[in-house]
Amino acid sequence: MASELAEYEKLSDQVKISEEALIADGFGENPFYHCLVAEILPTPMESQEPHVVGYGLYYFSYSTWKGRNIYLEDIYVMPEYRGQGIGTKIIRKVAEVALDKGCTQFRLTVLDWNKNAIGLYKSLGAQDLTEAEGWHSFRFEGEAMRELAGK
Amino acid sequence: MASELAEYEKLSDQVKISEEALIADGFGENPFYHCLVAEILPTPMESQEPHVVGYGLYYFSYSTWKGRNIYLEDIYVMPEYRGQGIGTKIIRKVAEVALDKGCTQFRLTVLDWNKNAIGLYKSLGAQDLTEAEGWHSFRFEGEAMRELAGK
Repeated sequence: MASELAEYEKLSDQVKISEEALIADGFGENPFYHCLVAEILPTPMESQEPHVVGYGLYYFSYSTWKGRNIYLEDIYVMPEYRGQGIGTKIIRKVAEVALDKGCTQFRLTVLDWNKNAIGLYKSLGAQDLTEAEGWHSFRFEGEAMRELAGK
Repeated sequence: MASELAEYEKLSDQVKISEEALIADGFGENPFYHCLVAEILPTPMESQEPHVVGYGLYYFSYSTWKGRNIYLEDIYVMPEYRGQGIGTKIIRKVAEVALDKGCTQFRLTVLDWNKNAIGLYKSLGAQDLTEAEGWHSFRFEGEAMRELAGK
């Protein structure tokens, strides 16, 4: 489903991870991330199992000014289940976890052309910090990172 | 020193954390962050102790497309020690830690008016993802977060 998100974000070429690595990193003793899944329950007449139609993947980050934060790295709902408030439910649940864990901020990053997501986040009370304060995301990767480390 | 950074970034009003909370969150069993400090050693003629003139504060984040990342939340060098390559040394050390821990990306965020920092990161091989791909940082905070969580 993370691949479907990459496709939606038009960044599929950036998917370079195996299922094994994802499992090892998320389900060990000190997991690198946590995941919430949205499931649809079958009606009593249906014989199928509950099935996953979306997910939210988060981890804890930190601010020396304000303390613990939660960061929602991925949020995804399958196309045929959009418009039913499932994304909002995932976001609300992440906010609950954030409060339970003593976080003072809930951060996420969104592509500027994704107007639906931006509209949703703003309607729920989020502030666009890139717009308001001028924060830009930078990344070192691959060769640049190895050169930096002198390796 | 985190307060000095906030002052430099013209966001001092956003500092709302106690020293006790910083210690508890950084030095427990599962620390929320890690910190590198840059120290100046006294010459043999001087009697003083080594003293801290800068720091880098990082934690691990995660990408479902690429796996483990390192995120440099703060990097700071005291004004009188700038221009000596101390910031670059901190960045190189973070890249080393990143590779040692199996990270494929090293991320950070910078204010758009901070041309010195942007110039440094670009010269070291970083890419501005807000510029290149259109990523914007969003944040829920305080009342907005409590409302979201229904608390």
